[in-house]
Order: sequence, then structure tokens, then C-alpha cells
Amino acid sequence: MKIVVVGATGTVGKAVVAALQGRHEIIKVGSKSGDLQADIKDSKSIRALFEKTGKVDAVACTAGKVHFGDFAKLTETEMLTSLKDKFLGQVNLVLIGRDYINDFGSFTLMSGVLSHDPIRLGVCASAVNGAVDCFAKGASIEMPRGIRINSISPGLLQESLDHYGPYFPGHKTVTGADVGRAYVKSIEGHLTGQTIQVL
Amino acid sequence: MKIVVVGATGTVGKAVVAALQGRHEIIKVGSKSGDLQADIKDSKSIRALFEKTGKVDAVACTAGKVHFGDFAKLTETEMLTSLKDKFLGQVNLVLIGRDYINDFGSFTLMSGVLSHDPIRLGVCASAVNGAVDCFAKGASIEMPRGIRINSISPGLLQESLDHYGPYFPGHKTVTGADVGRAYVKSIEGHLTGQTIQVL
Repeated sequence: MKIVVVGATGTVGKAVVAALQGRHEIIKVGSKSGDLQADIKDSKSIRALFEKTGKVDAVACTAGKVHFGDFAKLTETEMLTSLKDKFLGQVNLVLIGRDYINDFGSFTLMSGVLSHDPIRLGVCASAVNGAVDCFAKGASIEMPRGIRINSISPGLLQESLDHYGPYFPGHKTVTGADVGRAYVKSIEGHLTGQTIQVL
Repeated sequence: MKIVVVGATGTVGKAVVAALQGRHEIIKVGSKSGDLQADIKDSKSIRALFEKTGKVDAVACTAGKVHFGDFAKLTETEMLTSLKDKFLGQVNLVLIGRDYINDFGSFTLMSGVLSHDPIRLGVCASAVNGAVDCFAKGASIEMPRGIRINSISPGLLQESLDHYGPYFPGHKTVTGADVGRAYVKSIEGHLTGQTIQVL
């Protein structure tokens, strides 16, 4: 398969690429590095990306930022910015990418554990991850030409423990390899409309 | 309790008011009718509303619109508009309302069955409802002063069957009274961070 991995140079993206490598043609997309560059917050940038890749069999996204901070100080703008980045960015990858995806292709988006297992400072992530999971479920039943869509909802990454561990008290970690396998399940398997939990 | 019901003149809102009436002081808020008027899409309008109500014990929302339409034709703008209305509108009710809510008060938001049981044309509702449910869960663990927050996720309303029935093939209906009881459970009970399903 010809697979576009958006966010390929990040921690999760590298693990996804490692899990797919050898069996597929992979186009690594980063914001600044990778084979091609794109900014998922900008629909023109997404359209330009697919103009370069041409037709593909799978689009896997591991990109998307959200605001972390005290709920007591949370502003409407911080929530909206988070939605526009990790949620609407991934939605746009689908809305634009569907013009470039082959029959029976797949979209695999990234959400995360905070949708259902919240932490302090993480309310934007909770909301955005919930939106991503439910978007994938809703979109799956209207996808044309046998195209599938799933979301991957990983727990705290082992590889991010030094950085994020203190914010996730008591959370079990998962490895990048675990997350990579979940992307393989979505891309090479036949699931659609599923939230694939990596816990 | 002094309870603000936003969307009080709509189908769900009327049922919520009926379920609470007699035991509480209810301030009915509509976009054009009711005791007071407010537009949840406009933070200034929400602020002006609470300036009029003063301190309250509970805020219950049954308002919020989303786009319904073919996924094949869905645009970024239609998704963003839906988010800004039913999701960010309700978030703003909380972000602003927290300045006016008494200790041990509660927020009760409205999501809906399409988050996990999607229908054709309903992907915006799926995503927005998921965001609302997960926002309530995330926000609940950071609420100060014993303030609680839940979301109510109703199935297809019996009262809306003539209008929406054809779009919900095979869906079981729930009555407005069922939904009203769920709001009572959130407001008069001690739950927090829950998605109260009405199915």
C-alpha cells in the first residue's frame, strides 16, 4: 500500500512508521521535516500535500496539538484553538484526503485516553479526543467506495514518560510499538468506525 | 434551588422545566422567548444573562444546533459552525457561568445518542456530542467549590418523531419526561463527570 503518515517525525509517528515499514510505500509528512511538509491547521496546505502524493491507499495521522492548562483559567479561545488543531485538522485531512484516496482505502486518526480517563489540566484534550473518536464513528457509515475510518486512542506513551509522567498520576504506560500495532490493525485490517484503545 | 434552564422553550427544555417545576425557582431562557433571552453562541450575551440572573444553584442547557447533511458534501465550515454552536456555546455557559454559580451548584449540558449510535447525515452531531460528553467528564475533576457537571445524552425524542423519525431508522424513542428525569438526576443528585444516557 501507499501510505501517508502525517506527523511521521513525532514520537507516535516514528512508531507508526516503524510498524508499517518494509511492507508498504510510506510517505512521511512532518510540519518541518519528513519527505513532505504540511500544516493540518491549513486546508490549503493539506490540499497541496495530496497534490504531491497523488492517489494513496491509506492516510494515518499522529499530529495535532491541544492546550494544556488549569481549568480555572481556561478561555474560549484556548478551547477553540485546540479544536481547530487536533480535531478540525484531522477532519480536514479526511474531507480533502477523500478526493485522493483509493477505493477500499482507510483513514486512521489519533485521539487519546483523556476522553474517558481525564487528568488535571487536560480538559481541552478530553473534549477534542472525544470529538475525534465520535467523528470517526459517525463518518464511517457514510464513507463511499469501501473506504474505512478509525481512531486510535493511546494511553500515556512510555517514550513520553519523562516529559508527561507527572501529569498522569497512576496511568499505565503503553509503548510506541503498541500504538504502532493499533495503526497496523486499522490500516491492514478491515475494521471501520472503531475507536481502537491502546491501554 | 434557583435554576437557569437555557433552551427552556424548546421540546427538551419544556420537558426539563416540567420535571423541575414546583420544587425550584426556574428561570426560563430562550433565544427569543422565555423569562430572559440569550444566544449561547455569543459570550457577551451569556455574560449579560448571568448579570440578570445573579447567583444561581444550577445551570441546565438544552440548547445548541448542529448541521445535518450528506457527509459527501460536508465542509470544514459546517463542522466548525456546529462546534461553535452546540459545543463551544455550552462550554461558554460553563466558563462564564462558573462566576455566578453557588458552592455545590451544578452544570448539566446536552449531548445526544449520535455520539455512539450514528445515523446518515449526522456526523456533525456525532462529533459535537462526543466533545460535549468528554468535556463534562474532563471539567468535572477540576471544578472548584463542590460544583458538579454532567451531560445528558438522549435518544430520539418521542415528541420529535414526526419530524426526525425518518432519519433515525430503528431507533427506540424516549419521552421528554424520561429526559426531564435525567436532568433532575444531574441537578438534584450528587453525580459528577457522568454522561447520563437516556435510551
